[in-house]
Amino acid sequence: MSYLLTKSKQFALLGAAFLCASAAFAQVKPADALHYRKSAYNVLIWNWMPLANTVRGKTPYVKADFERYAGRVAQIAPMLLEGFPTGSGVGKTEAKPEIWTNWADFQQKMKAFETESAALATLSKGGDFEKIKVQFGKVGGTCKDCHDKYKTD
Amino acid sequence: MSYLLTKSKQFALLGAAFLCASAAFAQVKPADALHYRKSAYNVLIWNWMPLANTVRGKTPYVKADFERYAGRVAQIAPMLLEGFPTGSGVGKTEAKPEIWTNWADFQQKMKAFETESAALATLSKGGDFEKIKVQFGKVGGTCKDCHDKYKTD
Repeated sequence: MSYLLTKSKQFALLGAAFLCASAAFAQVKPADALHYRKSAYNVLIWNWMPLANTVRGKTPYVKADFERYAGRVAQIAPMLLEGFPTGSGVGKTEAKPEIWTNWADFQQKMKAFETESAALATLSKGGDFEKIKVQFGKVGGTCKDCHDKYKTD
Repeated sequence: MSYLLTKSKQFALLGAAFLCASAAFAQVKPADALHYRKSAYNVLIWNWMPLANTVRGKTPYVKADFERYAGRVAQIAPMLLEGFPTGSGVGKTEAKPEIWTNWADFQQKMKAFETESAALATLSKGGDFEKIKVQFGKVGGTCKDCHDKYKTD
């Protein structure tokens, strides 16, 4: 029916569409996404370090603690991707622009981290520390894969 | 066998115990705990806001989205308490000193938030939006209970 619209009505519709687009964009400001992902990674690291210290023999293996921290890492993993919306590669960030030009690959690497950390959380419930150590290494591998390509030093 | 120890050995043991205590304390620096809890709350808010916007009618109710965000809120809730170790009421913080003088009460309020947010996550899987709205209010109530008493304005 647009052919029936007057110029002024067309302009009004265009304005409305622009406002909607602005509103949608305003829902995720780049600075907010940056703050969110930094927070999520910080929560991740807080929970990751006790696992790393245990695997490296710095702290004794306590099944309940390891299980709790591994569970949290697996919970946080799927929360990360949402922190990288298009346009959020600005500000004080270690995220390389390649994230958004290779989005499918970045997404796949995040998925690998999710999968391996979920497997670590499951194994942690069993308490076989030798198997856990091997799986911890696999999770760490998925971190490294992504950092090597998409994180500045 | 300590009665067989010489004074110097007793001193050495005391020194070792002191070092262990220092090391344990060093594992959770007040600034790190503060950074952690601010991060955890920020991740919480990121996931809470879409729920609040939906309940307030600002955004349409989409079951899968609501379920995902409610699930995350329930996952983050039990991660918060760890961000308040003794001695971490310093620096740029909104945490009132009363947290540490009324620890049992603070802990109970955190537990209430965990319980109610877990109930919200469970309800969200069902998709009865009227019930969900009521439960959302209950979760919000546990937030307020704690903030009123333990958070500066």
